[in-house]
Amino acid sequence: MSETTRAAAPESDESHGGPGAGPAIAEPTHEAEPARRRTPGEEARTLMAAAKSGSLASLSEDGTPWASIVALGVTGAGEPVLVVSTMAEHGRNLVREPRCSVAVAEPVPEGDDPLDRARITLAGRVIVPAGEEADAALEAHARHYPFARGYAAYADFTTYVLRVERVRWVGGFARMSTVEPAEYAAAAIDPTAPAAASARLHLNHDHADSVLLWARTLGGYADALEATCEAIDRYGVDVRVQTPRGQAPVRIGFAEPAQSPGDLRGATVALAKAARAWTPTA
Amino acid sequence: MSETTRAAAPESDESHGGPGAGPAIAEPTHEAEPARRRTPGEEARTLMAAAKSGSLASLSEDGTPWASIVALGVTGAGEPVLVVSTMAEHGRNLVREPRCSVAVAEPVPEGDDPLDRARITLAGRVIVPAGEEADAALEAHARHYPFARGYAAYADFTTYVLRVERVRWVGGFARMSTVEPAEYAAAAIDPTAPAAASARLHLNHDHADSVLLWARTLGGYADALEATCEAIDRYGVDVRVQTPRGQAPVRIGFAEPAQSPGDLRGATVALAKAARAWTPTA
Repeated sequence: MSETTRAAAPESDESHGGPGAGPAIAEPTHEAEPARRRTPGEEARTLMAAAKSGSLASLSEDGTPWASIVALGVTGAGEPVLVVSTMAEHGRNLVREPRCSVAVAEPVPEGDDPLDRARITLAGRVIVPAGEEADAALEAHARHYPFARGYAAYADFTTYVLRVERVRWVGGFARMSTVEPAEYAAAAIDPTAPAAASARLHLNHDHADSVLLWARTLGGYADALEATCEAIDRYGVDVRVQTPRGQAPVRIGFAEPAQSPGDLRGATVALAKAARAWTPTA
Repeated sequence: MSETTRAAAPESDESHGGPGAGPAIAEPTHEAEPARRRTPGEEARTLMAAAKSGSLASLSEDGTPWASIVALGVTGAGEPVLVVSTMAEHGRNLVREPRCSVAVAEPVPEGDDPLDRARITLAGRVIVPAGEEADAALEAHARHYPFARGYAAYADFTTYVLRVERVRWVGGFARMSTVEPAEYAAAAIDPTAPAAASARLHLNHDHADSVLLWARTLGGYADALEATCEAIDRYGVDVRVQTPRGQAPVRIGFAEPAQSPGDLRGATVALAKAARAWTPTA
């Protein structure tokens, strides 16, 4: 896995000061190819692209940060678009104080731990867009909420775009990073994301033997007893292996990044082929 | 439906100042019995009792309200319990500024509008509980997150209880209320809530004729063509009717509040009996 995404961000570059460490992670039995990962910027853009609602933190008149649930659109540069009313406390807050942030979390598959899922916070200031930007922003919001075109015309509603000044991405336990706003704006949305959940289920239900073989060969865990695909993206798969020596997360990369949801099938077929052809090097 | 819950809260007691009103609601064809509803306090306590995670708004060092996703427990008085690390921005924020708020949203059934679901914001100050309160708070959190017992012992983690000073409940479109903290603390959690989603599905899939009959008789819409149960709780059912004159929301109350999930069956059987026995008055 890449240093970029597994490394703690500067402000988190410390270890828990308490009793003992977490459960032991088994070391690989042989070296595996380094595998590409989405950058934190790509993770954040991809997560935001799929979000239809999120949490807004605005500042209430008494100085209390105010958490609320908001409907979201997203601009081509990854900026959240809100259409909010001054009849709601958050709407009145934004009129008075444009500084705010929006948090978005990956949906949790049934039975999964909600803490081990990706989430982002985008912080900055909301602006009221004008001209073409206003039209584009409302359209971005209305893509998820067609009725917003009607709401937005009411006098108490305002369409806002969040100008992103800080991006914080958390990928799950111990995967986190701060992303520069320019990097966030420029990062690519993973085109395979809409198919990832079903591809993951398909691998685990119908190709568990194949995933195990990948882990034993390309993944570096010759003694893996079980292997479960935990995520799939344009660059590869995240697999959790169980070995007699404990468990471990394994990243296995595709030969080429997938460019569309349909590419995931070919990419995993190529992995299976590579795994069957794999031979231990000394 | 009761004035208490359908009425807009004081600070929202105004109407949209823009073009036209929403879609027309059909009036009843005959008078229906007033039907009890959960109070906003009961709604809020019930929603909070089911929440395992939520959104935290804390105040960042630069003055920006910071939205983040947090794991939640809840005390016997409905106070959120957080176990957070100073390795995370929200953890550092709470050390510096205890004022914060937590928002929790009802899970959205697949295909439903996320804006037409219940959500609450609880605002106040976090405190670090001591003695028995500390033990109870950690246990409340660990009920959802057993590993929290381990985390909480790390030096960078703190267990906080949110002392609730303000409660804002939104039940969906145009249903909202501010709840006094004392009322919130004292309100009962709906004991039937864990069974509500499956009971609703069961009514719509297997007893749609019965729901339609309730609407035509007890519900006050003699010309209802279709009726769908949108929610069920200890006091009754929310039904959406379609008539040749438009659609309408209908509340139909049970004769007695249900005291357990198992009571819902008897309560709906009693409704069916009452609907069959119903005769138009006048």
